[in-house]
Amino acid sequence: MRFISETSSHGVREQEFRHDEIPGVLWTPLEAAESRPLILLGHGGGQHKRAPGMSARAHRFVTELGCAVVAVDVPGHGDRPVDPELDRIATENQARVEAGEDMAPLIAGFQALVARRTVPEWRAVVDQVQSIPYVGTGPVGYWGVSLGCGLGVPFVAAEPRVRAAVLGLGGALASAGVAARITVPVRFLLQWDDERVPREQGLALFDAFGSAEKTMAANPGRHGELPRHELDGDVQFFRRHAIAAATAAMPAAFG
Amino acid sequence: MRFISETSSHGVREQEFRHDEIPGVLWTPLEAAESRPLILLGHGGGQHKRAPGMSARAHRFVTELGCAVVAVDVPGHGDRPVDPELDRIATENQARVEAGEDMAPLIAGFQALVARRTVPEWRAVVDQVQSIPYVGTGPVGYWGVSLGCGLGVPFVAAEPRVRAAVLGLGGALASAGVAARITVPVRFLLQWDDERVPREQGLALFDAFGSAEKTMAANPGRHGELPRHELDGDVQFFRRHAIAAATAAMPAAFG
Repeated sequence: MRFISETSSHGVREQEFRHDEIPGVLWTPLEAAESRPLILLGHGGGQHKRAPGMSARAHRFVTELGCAVVAVDVPGHGDRPVDPELDRIATENQARVEAGEDMAPLIAGFQALVARRTVPEWRAVVDQVQSIPYVGTGPVGYWGVSLGCGLGVPFVAAEPRVRAAVLGLGGALASAGVAARITVPVRFLLQWDDERVPREQGLALFDAFGSAEKTMAANPGRHGELPRHELDGDVQFFRRHAIAAATAAMPAAFG
Repeated sequence: MRFISETSSHGVREQEFRHDEIPGVLWTPLEAAESRPLILLGHGGGQHKRAPGMSARAHRFVTELGCAVVAVDVPGHGDRPVDPELDRIATENQARVEAGEDMAPLIAGFQALVARRTVPEWRAVVDQVQSIPYVGTGPVGYWGVSLGCGLGVPFVAAEPRVRAAVLGLGGALASAGVAARITVPVRFLLQWDDERVPREQGLALFDAFGSAEKTMAANPGRHGELPRHELDGDVQFFRRHAIAAATAAMPAAFG
């Protein structure tokens, strides 16, 4: 793992790195010295590790939870080269959807294919990042919706270091079987009018999680219209499950 | 309206009152002098205005939101005399459920009957309480689940002073038609394994609200097992919709 750039803003240090061919970014508190929890962010389809929504969440998790936050580009996204196989399948799927085929099973199959690469990649990135003294081997949280949910469910099921996960905008078709193996607390974000994930499939995925503690937050709106205020709930969820540095500010409402 | 007792604890003044024959309790900040938002709490079936869950919520809303909070006993509950008609119907319903009849429509019919009394009672209590200088005519919020949802839906639909409402543990059978007339922001609490309200009916009630902004928080568990942490979300919801005194503490996570 090698760092290739470093910037900082509003008390957050942002370091770009490469691990093998995987481009990633690590956000930490500017003055971080000791070990702290780590949150892995999974980006959405067509997005990348530093998309605005990713960066905004990383800054809030770092400043309000005192966590380290890491994100990497999924194969075929961001700074990674076009992946001929994934590109071909994505193009085929697009054509099949335009020809009137049901989108959900195509998305599910594609995400399952990609997850066979990202699960080992993400586990290796967590190994690397946790070897840094100012990250260290604290508890790990995961945040990912849409593609980040399709890839996140198998990752969270496979990675015992993950203690709590925010998932959403995904359906049971992709991952009900794997979801049943997840037992850590899950916060699930569902868009009531999601045009990509049929409501029944989103509800079925929430139902499928094996976790004794799971919460679904559902709001009106389409796939891309997740309300900003749900990020307050994400922060609250990670804090409640100790994905927060002991020194992180504790708002009165959570006292 | 006359006050019959006053106590205080942890910075919260608690005053019991009667308005006509309606027994109520008003919680306010101990040093309150000027106008502030008001939250009306609706209690559950078989409970009363000062049940532990009611008092706990009132204390958090007063201390964290700077609101006034009021609750009254529903006919046949708490300090109110047994209501022969309601008592007879409740007893009949119990027998019909024990004889194997479907519980949900019986609950719905009973709540609709009680609401014909509580809607005008609650509106009169808001009039009275808002005439007190240290309450005043600020925005009004409503919080009620189970019976408090069955009675709250028609109240919120009928009362334009209500600007935001937390409802839950209720089903569409009771109030889908009335719920469609509600347009203020709604936070809806659903228990995924509710043995009294079929899941589909809870989801249908959330779907029925006419509000452009509505959020459902669903958790595993039975009717009586609403997780404590959802009260953090209630506080956050009321603050987001300005059911909070300008002087109320604003936790960093909501900044």
